[in-house]
Amino acid sequence: MADAPREIEDLIALMARLPGLGPRSARRAVLHLMKKRAQLLLPLAEALSRVGANVRECARCGNLDTADLCAICTDARRASGQICVVEDVADLWALERARAYRGHYHVLGGLLSALDAVGPEDLGIPRLLARLEPEGVHEVILALPATLDGQTTAHYLADRLTGVTLTTLAQGVPVGGELDWLDEGTIGAALRARRSL
Amino acid sequence: MADAPREIEDLIALMARLPGLGPRSARRAVLHLMKKRAQLLLPLAEALSRVGANVRECARCGNLDTADLCAICTDARRASGQICVVEDVADLWALERARAYRGHYHVLGGLLSALDAVGPEDLGIPRLLARLEPEGVHEVILALPATLDGQTTAHYLADRLTGVTLTTLAQGVPVGGELDWLDEGTIGAALRARRSL
Repeated sequence: MADAPREIEDLIALMARLPGLGPRSARRAVLHLMKKRAQLLLPLAEALSRVGANVRECARCGNLDTADLCAICTDARRASGQICVVEDVADLWALERARAYRGHYHVLGGLLSALDAVGPEDLGIPRLLARLEPEGVHEVILALPATLDGQTTAHYLADRLTGVTLTTLAQGVPVGGELDWLDEGTIGAALRARRSL
Repeated sequence: MADAPREIEDLIALMARLPGLGPRSARRAVLHLMKKRAQLLLPLAEALSRVGANVRECARCGNLDTADLCAICTDARRASGQICVVEDVADLWALERARAYRGHYHVLGGLLSALDAVGPEDLGIPRLLARLEPEGVHEVILALPATLDGQTTAHYLADRLTGVTLTTLAQGVPVGGELDWLDEGTIGAALRARRSL
């Protein structure tokens, strides 16, 4: 049997480690790349090198940027004294897309998990606590997922974050959400948190 | 709103053009790459560059390899005089994995399609016809998909390939296939092609 060349097998094996791609779809993706060498394969190789060389974690908040301190941390127009705690950079981007928050962030890079042996130090929680005084933080907003690990992490943080106002995102019916498509948990939370008109 | 850095947005846009990944999953894949910079991001960038620089289409059959003529075309142990016509390099690899064929190949790189304006020249069909005499080809095996375009291409090739034995892959029940999971078309084909025991 003639194998595919070593270079291609290596590439397929690496692509198959991306979330959302398995061995078969990685193979398909690599063949697609070979067909679009100039338009896709070479630009992708270059974009990856560029990200690998230039993008790093912000030393203060954990956001991704090309400088040691990210654009959000260095933006003087953003309200200081407010930190929104998120699990992941993807959540930070989602909040930024909503254009509803003008404070700073802290990216945990994960959630506390007894099962996966993830402790507070792994998540930079000491780093978060160390930011409170020097930055004059008066409010910490917890924007963590409503999962078991998310809520465990939120409770842990609530215990440690003393002397600041602690808030969390409201739970309720999504904007444009239809009641008969929603799960009972969300409907129950929305009912309990009902407000007068 | 603070955008993700330009380098990351560029990378997400390129990743989203891979088959099997959309904008959301491309974003997730890029964040995963950022977390595994040394183990995944940098090796992937290098593997892509290496494939881009070294892997090319075989000048004779269209297979992918690092030399101008691929390992199959230059393998003296393979039967000359037999050419198996496939749509794509992925199909060639699938046939090689089956270890049941020891002749040569011809990769069309697509199928005839009136809808997408793909004609015989786009598929290197003239190149296939030009191989018949110099290589002393006595049999051409059509291993094309059982789709409309696949069958159109097979009919077109059958008209042009004169003076050689023309065969096609048998249709029937897959090995290990259970009848009640099979489509009617396959069961019908298997019945019509039944053989005596």
